[in-house]
Amino acid sequence: MRPSGRAADALRPVSIETGVSAHAEGSCLIRCGRTHVLCTASLEPRVPPFLRNTGLGWVTAEYGMLPRATTSRNQREAKKGQTGRTQEIQRLIGRALRAGLDRAALGERQITIDCDVLQADGGTRCASITGGWVALRLAVNKLMKAGEVKMDPLMDHVAAVSCGIFGGMPLLDLDYAEDSEAGTDANFVMTGRGGLVEIQAAAEGATFSRAEFDAMLALAETGTAQLVEAQKAAIAG
Amino acid sequence: MRPSGRAADALRPVSIETGVSAHAEGSCLIRCGRTHVLCTASLEPRVPPFLRNTGLGWVTAEYGMLPRATTSRNQREAKKGQTGRTQEIQRLIGRALRAGLDRAALGERQITIDCDVLQADGGTRCASITGGWVALRLAVNKLMKAGEVKMDPLMDHVAAVSCGIFGGMPLLDLDYAEDSEAGTDANFVMTGRGGLVEIQAAAEGATFSRAEFDAMLALAETGTAQLVEAQKAAIAG
Amino acid sequence: MRPSGRAADALRPVSIETGVSAHAEGSCLIRCGRTHVLCTASLEPRVPPFLRNTGLGWVTAEYGMLPRATTSRNQREAKKGQTGRTQEIQRLIGRALRAGLDRAALGERQITIDCDVLQADGGTRCASITGGWVALRLAVNKLMKAGEVKMDPLMDHVAAVSCGIFGGMPLLDLDYAEDSEAGTDANFVMTGRGGLVEIQAAAEGATFSRAEFDAMLALAETGTAQLVEAQKAAIAG
Amino acid sequence: MRPSGRAADALRPVSIETGVSAHAEGSCLIRCGRTHVLCTASLEPRVPPFLRNTGLGWVTAEYGMLPRATTSRNQREAKKGQTGRTQEIQRLIGRALRAGLDRAALGERQITIDCDVLQADGGTRCASITGGWVALRLAVNKLMKAGEVKMDPLMDHVAAVSCGIFGGMPLLDLDYAEDSEAGTDANFVMTGRGGLVEIQAAAEGATFSRAEFDAMLALAETGTAQLVEAQKAAIAG
Amino acid sequence: MRPSGRAADALRPVSIETGVSAHAEGSCLIRCGRTHVLCTASLEPRVPPFLRNTGLGWVTAEYGMLPRATTSRNQREAKKGQTGRTQEIQRLIGRALRAGLDRAALGERQITIDCDVLQADGGTRCASITGGWVALRLAVNKLMKAGEVKMDPLMDHVAAVSCGIFGGMPLLDLDYAEDSEAGTDANFVMTGRGGLVEIQAAAEGATFSRAEFDAMLALAETGTAQLVEAQKAAIAG
Amino acid sequence: MRPSGRAADALRPVSIETGVSAHAEGSCLIRCGRTHVLCTASLEPRVPPFLRNTGLGWVTAEYGMLPRATTSRNQREAKKGQTGRTQEIQRLIGRALRAGLDRAALGERQITIDCDVLQADGGTRCASITGGWVALRLAVNKLMKAGEVKMDPLMDHVAAVSCGIFGGMPLLDLDYAEDSEAGTDANFVMTGRGGLVEIQAAAEGATFSRAEFDAMLALAETGTAQLVEAQKAAIAG
Repeated sequence: MRPSGRAADALRPVSIETGVSAHAEGSCLIRCGRTHVLCTASLEPRVPPFLRNTGLGWVTAEYGMLPRATTSRNQREAKKGQTGRTQEIQRLIGRALRAGLDRAALGERQITIDCDVLQADGGTRCASITGGWVALRLAVNKLMKAGEVKMDPLMDHVAAVSCGIFGGMPLLDLDYAEDSEAGTDANFVMTGRGGLVEIQAAAEGATFSRAEFDAMLALAETGTAQLVEAQKAAIAG
Repeated sequence: MRPSGRAADALRPVSIETGVSAHAEGSCLIRCGRTHVLCTASLEPRVPPFLRNTGLGWVTAEYGMLPRATTSRNQREAKKGQTGRTQEIQRLIGRALRAGLDRAALGERQITIDCDVLQADGGTRCASITGGWVALRLAVNKLMKAGEVKMDPLMDHVAAVSCGIFGGMPLLDLDYAEDSEAGTDANFVMTGRGGLVEIQAAAEGATFSRAEFDAMLALAETGTAQLVEAQKAAIAG
Repeated sequence: MRPSGRAADALRPVSIETGVSAHAEGSCLIRCGRTHVLCTASLEPRVPPFLRNTGLGWVTAEYGMLPRATTSRNQREAKKGQTGRTQEIQRLIGRALRAGLDRAALGERQITIDCDVLQADGGTRCASITGGWVALRLAVNKLMKAGEVKMDPLMDHVAAVSCGIFGGMPLLDLDYAEDSEAGTDANFVMTGRGGLVEIQAAAEGATFSRAEFDAMLALAETGTAQLVEAQKAAIAG
Repeated sequence: MRPSGRAADALRPVSIETGVSAHAEGSCLIRCGRTHVLCTASLEPRVPPFLRNTGLGWVTAEYGMLPRATTSRNQREAKKGQTGRTQEIQRLIGRALRAGLDRAALGERQITIDCDVLQADGGTRCASITGGWVALRLAVNKLMKAGEVKMDPLMDHVAAVSCGIFGGMPLLDLDYAEDSEAGTDANFVMTGRGGLVEIQAAAEGATFSRAEFDAMLALAETGTAQLVEAQKAAIAG
Repeated sequence: MRPSGRAADALRPVSIETGVSAHAEGSCLIRCGRTHVLCTASLEPRVPPFLRNTGLGWVTAEYGMLPRATTSRNQREAKKGQTGRTQEIQRLIGRALRAGLDRAALGERQITIDCDVLQADGGTRCASITGGWVALRLAVNKLMKAGEVKMDPLMDHVAAVSCGIFGGMPLLDLDYAEDSEAGTDANFVMTGRGGLVEIQAAAEGATFSRAEFDAMLALAETGTAQLVEAQKAAIAG
Repeated sequence: MRPSGRAADALRPVSIETGVSAHAEGSCLIRCGRTHVLCTASLEPRVPPFLRNTGLGWVTAEYGMLPRATTSRNQREAKKGQTGRTQEIQRLIGRALRAGLDRAALGERQITIDCDVLQADGGTRCASITGGWVALRLAVNKLMKAGEVKMDPLMDHVAAVSCGIFGGMPLLDLDYAEDSEAGTDANFVMTGRGGLVEIQAAAEGATFSRAEFDAMLALAETGTAQLVEAQKAAIAG
């Protein structure tokens, strides 16, 4: 029995509320259990220097956590600077969201996805990718509706989920209590058609075996498929 | 007629939702019209060096704005460092909340109030003070209920509101559109019993007269009295 | 009796010595009692990005304090970075000096006022405004004499003074010893014609009443009028 | 045919020269083709705060690249600060080396592994792990020889290699030219007994399939086994 | 004929005004022609970590230049951080002042010399050393008078002067205009008894010969002897 | 007898290995005893702003030390920022290398010399100058061979060596153990024809006399002449 009482292959309840920002071109508040992330998409008419005059667009991401999103308060990153962990996470989110992107179809414009964790209970980077994609989708829909973009630059859904080995048992979608005790921790980013975008698996203490990895990957396929359904419902919403 | 269509002495609709954080000792989400601020109170067993072994407690505040809280996206402060404006605001919030505080009654512990603006439409520093006081009140209630603090260290409510001179007319509680056009901008921090805690009034372009200042102060007295009622209702919850 | 032995409505002795810098376009050393501030005005042919090609000019200010300007040595800001207090003060000085400015008459050029406190004994921000305006006036005079500016861009004098409530008594122009003990601390920026430019009043400990505030404002009107006379004498000098 | 002319499953020539530092407790210069990394192990008698008085030791890693290790010169990190990429890599190296570590056996001391890239041609993080483990092994041998550590705290070899999908073909140990063109890029960290320590696989452009991932993993098993042999030879050296 | 019209071996007029700070333990304003430096000595009861519990004292120096000390305004170091030039100069001043110091006689206390350039016209580092020593001397005199230090920890005067080769001619005490054109620039720090403390000589463009160096050294001996006399007069003051 | 056992006028064994970088336009690894510095020259088609459109070129230098180049590990400068010592050294190297440079002959391009200390045993700044000049020479040779530069912009060799007074005896080329104990420490930069480029001599504790200085200068002349021969052999190599 896992600490959360869920079945080994059960996601936490997911809700994705769209249109939560009066200003952003796309936005949602994603809740994966007690992990809550506010995702906004901001459209800017310029691209980074290396893309100027190429006709190609760019999607980038930034990630932050409010100081008291966690059990005990963390120092504010605006005061101490971004940690290595934060930079690593926002680089992951950006790569993941670009995986489903046709940069030529987007044209020479940039969309910045801000993922700010209001409350954390494990899996914040995965929730940021899943929610960030919804914010991106809504911003792109707006561009297409306005006729500024002709062909859909988003080729597929992108969603992410964590898995872990807990007491020898592969589990889907770990919360913080489970994650702290897990022997191996893995994040999987996948597309709506099941293509692999990114895998990050790390042993904590003991190494993991090929069989354990395969079991986690199978759980992730199930989990991301459900998250993609939640994305679809939210956008249709 | 003011841009928002409100009467000159009308506040925007205020709502204060408490208990919005699973982790913080006190929390609320305050909405003053379209300005939304998440306020959390974090209790820490230590005080700043200058108070060690004095038996006195401390309340401090930090302020932040999500990058896309505003009409166009601002650079993330975790990347560029806190601006002078941010530091000025968080110093104001801290001073304001300490005005109603009996430091000896609190005892040698620190409460940090984090005010994070999720959506901005003018008056974010005032909303942070009004909401921050609620989060502080809830955290202190928890301490008192647990018997850790005997005498109530909060001597009175503290609330804040902005006023301005717009087209020669004194107005209460400016939204962003009104504030951008106002000739004078003032923030008033007051207690539940009407004591003055802080006044910050600044001319933008033309100077202001004694009569204009007096009119703004009268509006602020009305406004903060209503905000104090909203605080009471929220805490009674 | 106040600690300094002055009457409640007495300024400290003021002296403003102009032309103290061999290089600056305008300069003065202002002494308000033992508070000494070196003010220089530097003319630059460029304006900040948001004013380019608008034909409008800009005045900005920077503030610093030598490490041993104070009773005990402070860490050098060049080593630790500017504190929030420093940034707050220099923003105030800049706003104050722009209040008396016709930006179109100045034309597309910038004047930077540097206010460096050589010795501190309370009231450094007010002395910086009063002295900074003199340096600005001298730099503008030079521009006008050279025919580079046709119409006077300085519409009025700007001067500032602090007031406080000390032992229940409103006092003008607090020195450091008085300020440390005062229950309320206020800074008033006014023009030569008595217009209000900025008011910053803050309770320290107890709140202040409307009557106390009014008494401080009346003192400030007297005080700034005398400072404006000192400015006139210095410039005529 | 891959750009380097190597067989799909061929490592670049590996050499590990030990004892290259006169000062470090353990050191080596690892060359994987034209990628050259200087690895040193520094023993320090203190541990990070979270481990004090626990009896447990710690291994951490830092990574750097000389400005002209690359085809065109990069700005020196000592001037601009560590990039997100650098922090991500040094966190990976540290985690990898701790995977084979018995912290209780090491006792309350810290070993810092510095991996400085003298010349880069792809695969620098993998070379750093493989070489860093050798430096760590040598420093631990020294501790054991001196009788300061009784039981061997290194439970197994740790080595790493990159793989990629190039033109649809899975390849082992990509050099920079191959890596720039690869559609998917993966790093595998494994132990001497074949346990998995860390997997990082990321699509560049197109997603990758389960079959492609499995092929890369098989190549990595072959590659790390050969690197472990090179480690053994170097240490026996 | 040199640009300043002075004889090749003539110092600029020197004045050293002591007691210019109401707060510092020792202070002076040194004027070498148009170069004006405010020097303060601050006594602190602690020493740097490497000297704790050794019974030895420490003298250190910091250097700064007001933004408009120069012909055109420089960016404020509090905003951009200390430049390499500033750090190099303050390290030189500290070393120079420690050369005449008996650290055991001073006892376990630190004196920090702040040298702030109010106006610059060449030779600011030399004026800082010469004036800084006076501030140090006055602070030590105070300690001795108070009986806190028994034996004089200052073994000799320390003074500094610049020399240069201008149009093939060795010159003493260059001002800014001369320094900008000089082919070689040298700073000499010497004691009252003529001992050498530090020599920094650098070619600008062409190299310099042994004979040119010897001529500069002879000029420096004359110059520092006169500066030592000025120090004596100021202290006797 | 000096600690190293060398004669007072004996250099440590010098070796200069060229072509050690696959990417840099010029490179060498210089070994002066146990001090090892990797020097690379990077050609860039742009010059600093103050030289744009002047037709003049620029040579600049950066210096770094690997964390474990020293007996005990130093904190990585990429983490803490460049120290004052590092900035002082790289400014010296840059000035030294520009002393032998005809900027017009180089044309509007910049060459950056990176000097990274792999292992330190005293004299790293001198080894950086001597080795840095070799890297510069090789990069310039490449430019001349390619016909991009017509006239040789390097007018002479530049080399550097340290001297010191140890136990009253002048010594050439101090290693770390000797340098730590020396009463005076001096660095001399000279050209192939014996011209003086830079002298930096500093007393540590006691002052030094004219005679001592002259003895050090004589040793330096001998030492740099031998280093210039080593440069010639390496380039011819």
